[in-house]
Amino acid sequence: MENLEANFEPRFAARTKRIQASTIREILKLTSQPGYISFAGGLPAADLFPIERIGEATQRILREQGVQALQYSTTEGHLPLREWIASRVPGATPENVQIVSGSQQGLDLIGKVLIDPGSRVLVEAPTYLGALSAFNPYEPEYVSVPMDDEGLELEALEAALQARPVKFMYVLPTFQNPSGRLMGLERRRAIVELARKYRTPILEDDAYAELYFDGKPLPTLYALDHALGGGNVIYLSTTSKTLAPGLRVAWVVGPRPLIQKITFAKQGADLHTPTLNQMLVYELVRDGAWYGEQIDKIRQTYQTRCHWMLQALQKYMPEDMGWIVPKGGMFFWLTAPAGLDSLELLKKAVEEKTAFVPGQPFFADGSGKNTLRLSYSSASHEQIEDGLQRLGRAIHRMLGRAPVA
Amino acid sequence: MENLEANFEPRFAARTKRIQASTIREILKLTSQPGYISFAGGLPAADLFPIERIGEATQRILREQGVQALQYSTTEGHLPLREWIASRVPGATPENVQIVSGSQQGLDLIGKVLIDPGSRVLVEAPTYLGALSAFNPYEPEYVSVPMDDEGLELEALEAALQARPVKFMYVLPTFQNPSGRLMGLERRRAIVELARKYRTPILEDDAYAELYFDGKPLPTLYALDHALGGGNVIYLSTTSKTLAPGLRVAWVVGPRPLIQKITFAKQGADLHTPTLNQMLVYELVRDGAWYGEQIDKIRQTYQTRCHWMLQALQKYMPEDMGWIVPKGGMFFWLTAPAGLDSLELLKKAVEEKTAFVPGQPFFADGSGKNTLRLSYSSASHEQIEDGLQRLGRAIHRMLGRAPVA
Repeated sequence: MENLEANFEPRFAARTKRIQASTIREILKLTSQPGYISFAGGLPAADLFPIERIGEATQRILREQGVQALQYSTTEGHLPLREWIASRVPGATPENVQIVSGSQQGLDLIGKVLIDPGSRVLVEAPTYLGALSAFNPYEPEYVSVPMDDEGLELEALEAALQARPVKFMYVLPTFQNPSGRLMGLERRRAIVELARKYRTPILEDDAYAELYFDGKPLPTLYALDHALGGGNVIYLSTTSKTLAPGLRVAWVVGPRPLIQKITFAKQGADLHTPTLNQMLVYELVRDGAWYGEQIDKIRQTYQTRCHWMLQALQKYMPEDMGWIVPKGGMFFWLTAPAGLDSLELLKKAVEEKTAFVPGQPFFADGSGKNTLRLSYSSASHEQIEDGLQRLGRAIHRMLGRAPVA
Repeated sequence: MENLEANFEPRFAARTKRIQASTIREILKLTSQPGYISFAGGLPAADLFPIERIGEATQRILREQGVQALQYSTTEGHLPLREWIASRVPGATPENVQIVSGSQQGLDLIGKVLIDPGSRVLVEAPTYLGALSAFNPYEPEYVSVPMDDEGLELEALEAALQARPVKFMYVLPTFQNPSGRLMGLERRRAIVELARKYRTPILEDDAYAELYFDGKPLPTLYALDHALGGGNVIYLSTTSKTLAPGLRVAWVVGPRPLIQKITFAKQGADLHTPTLNQMLVYELVRDGAWYGEQIDKIRQTYQTRCHWMLQALQKYMPEDMGWIVPKGGMFFWLTAPAGLDSLELLKKAVEEKTAFVPGQPFFADGSGKNTLRLSYSSASHEQIEDGLQRLGRAIHRMLGRAPVA
């Protein structure tokens, strides 16, 4: 009686070398233990989930359209939801919209359809770690472009586009995960123009778009490209940050030749996003007044929590720790004094029963060793106070200095 | 103002050549028009969806575990559901179980993790079309092995395994889609032994396992392999045929080294299957008595509908039309006189306002031109009578014979 399971290892496809556990995943496991105050997970505030509303909407859907909600449906997605999405994107029709099972699936399908082994994909430094996980199995080469406070540095971007052809550039202009940065209007315009000049499509990931604290939202790269003739931006957004991530409903908006291929790819990947979930999302967002209030509530809550974290950072961090003050979104991005390794710091922080995400995995080029991401979206005032005090102790211990009492 | 969307076509990855619209898809569109009686879609009977029960379970989950149901969760899937699945598979623990968003996603992730361009994947002739759509983007070569009434022909199978290494073989032993065939016990044993002898893993797709009409279910290939030491079968099943396909909850059970890679691949592909849907499925299946009754109801309904279709086939088909009488599942598989092209027949059938799926797309080697699949799972007695009469007219017209009145 021989167990043959060891037989699998040598059978893995070459791409499987690049399919690995992520740091975030291991950390999420760790910090689910009691007693920890974790700022690691990018979890939306569960206390704001519209649970009751979701219950009512589900009952209505099952009563009125139960068979449709539970049967197989088309790969493109629920038409009323696609219409609602198209109505919010300049120049889009439902035929430009593909519903996906979370933005993550959008990233996977776009990678599948566009990336050959060795294709150059341009990313921000840092960039969203989940996008790297989605693209990696398709074996791209990454071109990492540095950022300043306004987003991608233009000179470095143009140099990269000029050097060798790039398949597409992946950009998170609004409250970027992980850095929280907001790309300014002039920078947006310049990047859209550069992309058009070098005939390089932009993949715009706008998961955090609704989460601005003050002021008005800036136009999307998709809208700016549309004003110049369009066809060069793929737009990705989601309900994970405004309704509930557990529903897994997001969308890709893009030029039709691409959307068609994404639809065929999705058909092979999972047939369609659960019908009930799509109908549920539509039931919630179609009531614009309610949806507006829901988003306002999230904005105000995150702004308050962000403010608490800013105060705690000022109180407990050493003077040579730097950070970007977010204008929206869910994250603080910290830059420690050069030489401090944030993975080592995490080990110390865990001893103090707190946690964050080390920054290095967000850099496709392996830089950013002294950076870290803290999420405030799910934390109470007390947790932020206590947790940052713990983190402060860990940092001061590492630097061999006396912590702030 | 230039629209750049034409820019995408030359940017598609090489694999995208193999990401195409499927015949099934186009046919499903067609037959959604009123007036048609379609036997094309493999749609479970919507009149048996447990809508009320799903409503109650959703309310209970939202009331008692609302936050968990709507928050991000682990990639592996909802633990109680994985425990329930493991308890039904010999030798399995929850660590052998990965929840996926429909069997289709299981096929995609297994392809992603195992198939290199040019890898040989052995399939039945015919095989499930959706598996070909899932595997195609990973650019395998298919090795098609013919079947007799009992399943894969053993001599041909051994010759294929001997000739050149095969990455894995994909088998649907129970009420295969499309042919409805049930692989007998001796054939099952022989195939499991051959696979072990040639160190070739089996991917067992068991989507229709519960849908037997009479008698007792046969042991799965997974169970037979387990009895010989295990580690050589990957098992795939789903709730799409017993509860509701729109929920998109299925599972892969397999050796841990493979399941771990599938988990990492799924993390990059869609993070996790919607939590609410997984919890909902668990709420339904955990009540074994109710779940047993639900499946019995489906079995009896399909057996009745199958019987109606058999009677109508005997009445309206020409004498030289052959078919397999199903012992379970959802499909009749017809073999027309050689020379009759079932795609041409479909065009005639559509003129008569009925539809089926031509068999050829189910053959990886392009054979099977004179075969066709009819689904009885969703049809009423009247629809079966009228539809088969229409199909009979179309066939007799094509053959230049007088139809049965």
